[in-house]
Amino acid sequence: MAEGYSELRNERVSAANGVDYAYRDTGGGQGTAPLILLQHFRGNLDNWDPALIDTLAQSRRVVTFDNAGVGGSTGTTPDTIEQMAGDAIAFLTALELSQADLLGFSIGSFIAQQIALMRPAIVRRLILASSAPQGAAGMHGWAPEVIGAIGTPQTSPEAYLDVFFTRSAASRQAGQQALRRMYARTEDRDTATTWATREAQYDAVCTWGIPDHSRLQRIGALGMPVFVANGDSDPMILPRYSYLLAGLIPHAQVKIYPDSAHGFLFQHHAEFAADVDTFLTRR
Amino acid sequence: MAEGYSELRNERVSAANGVDYAYRDTGGGQGTAPLILLQHFRGNLDNWDPALIDTLAQSRRVVTFDNAGVGGSTGTTPDTIEQMAGDAIAFLTALELSQADLLGFSIGSFIAQQIALMRPAIVRRLILASSAPQGAAGMHGWAPEVIGAIGTPQTSPEAYLDVFFTRSAASRQAGQQALRRMYARTEDRDTATTWATREAQYDAVCTWGIPDHSRLQRIGALGMPVFVANGDSDPMILPRYSYLLAGLIPHAQVKIYPDSAHGFLFQHHAEFAADVDTFLTRR
Repeated sequence: MAEGYSELRNERVSAANGVDYAYRDTGGGQGTAPLILLQHFRGNLDNWDPALIDTLAQSRRVVTFDNAGVGGSTGTTPDTIEQMAGDAIAFLTALELSQADLLGFSIGSFIAQQIALMRPAIVRRLILASSAPQGAAGMHGWAPEVIGAIGTPQTSPEAYLDVFFTRSAASRQAGQQALRRMYARTEDRDTATTWATREAQYDAVCTWGIPDHSRLQRIGALGMPVFVANGDSDPMILPRYSYLLAGLIPHAQVKIYPDSAHGFLFQHHAEFAADVDTFLTRR
Repeated sequence: MAEGYSELRNERVSAANGVDYAYRDTGGGQGTAPLILLQHFRGNLDNWDPALIDTLAQSRRVVTFDNAGVGGSTGTTPDTIEQMAGDAIAFLTALELSQADLLGFSIGSFIAQQIALMRPAIVRRLILASSAPQGAAGMHGWAPEVIGAIGTPQTSPEAYLDVFFTRSAASRQAGQQALRRMYARTEDRDTATTWATREAQYDAVCTWGIPDHSRLQRIGALGMPVFVANGDSDPMILPRYSYLLAGLIPHAQVKIYPDSAHGFLFQHHAEFAADVDTFLTRR
């Protein structure tokens, strides 16, 4: 067995836009395209649950990265999803990937949608976790208790658990286990994300959430297979937006995971990884 | 136990719009509002599966009716969903119902949406079976094989089974059982629907399906709880439109039933009736 995500070294690649991107590269094998992961609000390389990455990497190459200005990457975090998508495409190009599967999580799923619209040829299949389409009514800026919990200058494990996991004992325990896995790495941790990144990302999230019914039509243009997934109790991006995505995207499947919130993919890492593998390998 | 749906007599009521409506009235009990059923394309009172109606009627009053111009009702079938909704409201008014739960099936679900938008005060809760929102892309006029099967001058049980049930042995058998239950009644059957009704209803269906993204916004105004349901293999109204409804309606829940098509509510009559009861009685 290859080394696990917690032991992977941080790689660097210089892109044509002048940004040096921090990333980790694991897994391998033949068959489908590499799977590129796009991280959540304020997250860096260490905020992926190693249990999820290691399961995904059993059957394919998996790459996590910090987008421009985030964590260990150089550059400035832009304040629009459009520019973040352009920065992500620059990273994919620097890795010489002509086609990839994308798994976008939260703000990363907004960027993944935008990449699939801007450069559809690069996206073989698309996974949208805890996601919503641009312009959907009722999602602007997130609920006050959500941004009040995970948008503060200093964050805490408790606030993280409140948004990413539910109040049930089972979900809480899963959350604490996920945190333990993320913090098991002590050497060569990624650079923490800055307040400037938080501000720019939240500007981008608020702009994405400006109600605009006409924008919902955009994702009708997505031609690739899409897997939409969320927790049934996500307070940050409500599961109804997953249904909306699945209703608007021509070739989408949707799954809502029980007793879970924004971090459903860490809580249900084995089931979600198996669903992702099925989605990516089916004919 | 009260008499079953197959033995109910056909009632008549005269409404203020000059139409005499044919209907059947069963069940009873305290508690929630009466449940009014709105029938599918070309269907009359005899096209409700008695097994479904009798289960629903165990805990509430259930009323089926022919809308204006349909089956045993007088008047002319209009060619717009809007006018059909007005005709249905006239029937509810004639029955002196100030509030009701609505279960709309197929074209009946379009009418139910329109009633809930036109006169929200009358609709306590709303169930949309095999449904789609007005203007959704890709649903215009139904697939050729669908309208070619159930839109012909003479219809057949085989064509009905092809659209309302799947190709699986289990679904086919369920379909044949449903047909047997519907045809068990030999006395006092309802008047068959006419070709004029077929033409007017299909005009209304095609008009409802004219692609118009802006119209999707309408159902964001629905304030009541809504239960959206469909079969996973409905060839007439694809399940993705149920997701679209659930994504656009503020307080919706959605369920997709396995190995079933347009007639999922007859095939899974016990499970669906239980789900409806849970939805109508939950606080």
